[in-house]
Amino acid sequence: MPLVTIKLIEGIFSDQQKQQMIERVTDAMLSIEGENLRPVTWVLIDDSVRSGDWGIGGHGLTVEDFQAVAAGKTTAPAIG
Amino acid sequence: MPLVTIKLIEGIFSDQQKQQMIERVTDAMLSIEGENLRPVTWVLIDDSVRSGDWGIGGHGLTVEDFQAVAAGKTTAPAIG
Amino acid sequence: MPLVTIKLIEGIFSDQQKQQMIERVTDAMLSIEGENLRPVTWVLIDDSVRSGDWGIGGHGLTVEDFQAVAAGKTTAPAIG
Amino acid sequence: MPLVTIKLIEGIFSDQQKQQMIERVTDAMLSIEGENLRPVTWVLIDDSVRSGDWGIGGHGLTVEDFQAVAAGKTTAPAIG
Amino acid sequence: MPLVTIKLIEGIFSDQQKQQMIERVTDAMLSIEGENLRPVTWVLIDDSVRSGDWGIGGHGLTVEDFQAVAAGKTTAPAIG
Amino acid sequence: MPLVTIKLIEGIFSDQQKQQMIERVTDAMLSIEGENLRPVTWVLIDDSVRSGDWGIGGHGLTVEDFQAVAAGKTTAPAIG
Repeated sequence: MPLVTIKLIEGIFSDQQKQQMIERVTDAMLSIEGENLRPVTWVLIDDSVRSGDWGIGGHGLTVEDFQAVAAGKTTAPAIG
Repeated sequence: MPLVTIKLIEGIFSDQQKQQMIERVTDAMLSIEGENLRPVTWVLIDDSVRSGDWGIGGHGLTVEDFQAVAAGKTTAPAIG
Repeated sequence: MPLVTIKLIEGIFSDQQKQQMIERVTDAMLSIEGENLRPVTWVLIDDSVRSGDWGIGGHGLTVEDFQAVAAGKTTAPAIG
Repeated sequence: MPLVTIKLIEGIFSDQQKQQMIERVTDAMLSIEGENLRPVTWVLIDDSVRSGDWGIGGHGLTVEDFQAVAAGKTTAPAIG
Repeated sequence: MPLVTIKLIEGIFSDQQKQQMIERVTDAMLSIEGENLRPVTWVLIDDSVRSGDWGIGGHGLTVEDFQAVAAGKTTAPAIG
Repeated sequence: MPLVTIKLIEGIFSDQQKQQMIERVTDAMLSIEGENLRPVTWVLIDDSVRSGDWGIGGHGLTVEDFQAVAAGKTTAPAIG
């Protein structure tokens, strides 16, 4: 404990970026729970959702849709 | 995307600690994926696993077991 | 197959609404996969996420936050 | 919220069918929770379970097994 | 690895039965993967699904429904 | 009910081993819950986590890392 699962669309992040996610999310968790829990802090990446299969508001978003949001080319969804 | 789920034992972390987890894990993710994806970066906390129901190596660990590891009172599990 | 899981914040929907979710989501799935798969179509509701523990963009949303969005009192998040 | 995850066996449904699942399941949810929650209604499809790896009653079912049930060629499982 | 999650309806199994599940499922996994992986074999129990929220074929089953099946009082669902 | 999910790294276990997991874990569950629940006992295998994406203590483990632990070549992680 804890168990952190990071769900991603397939093919959007590189292996290096996924390693950074594991490192930085682990460090974020340890900064709260304490360093002694490191050996039982698991962070799993699951990037098996296919492009087009990530539905927001009834619309299946693709890798390209998310890249457009990331690049600031699309009006990003916003929480009010 | 992404969707991050943090699974915890019930009753081990305070509301304030859980808010810190949401903030820091979100920031860790945004440092890699870029700030524009903030509105679609979800971090859910699921602390519904009961004390005793977190099995490691066939032994169900309790809140007290994890607190002992966190306090350094028990030899922590370690990855070689 | 299929297995559908509906994750909700605790205490926001009534028992009747949750039964409607099971019925209508099952029907939506069967309209695509065919009626013969009904007996192996599972729809589970998991409403164990605590109020405040549903993080969007680094902010933990409460039952009241979602009710304000549902009532149109808050600018809803929108996908561009 | 809500977060709906649809778990499927790999290769059994077409891209078009998966888009229909996202649309119809989203609409089913919105008919209960209200249209204002559309932007925060996520429906993810995860069709990464391999053929043979969906165990029911101790027997791993394949794409062909489910297609036989869908076609009415096999006695379907039934809830009493 | 592996990570095994056992999802149950709330209140149907005793603490003792849940400990047996952790022990026996761990042993079943180790009989295949080998004893050396014991320390990284996690078996988590999640019994947070409420009675009535386990939908099969569009019908939300309760603790009593499952107890009737277990007791042989109801025609059990069967895979053909 | 129950629903058991077994999460594995991709490519580490053979099809035969995965069938054994389904059979033996189902039997372990039925030994506790009773044979009558067999038709509604589901055991799903999800081996979609890529090699390198299973993070323990901030380090992403590969198929080779787990094989080394299984073979006893690496000091295994241990719970105290």
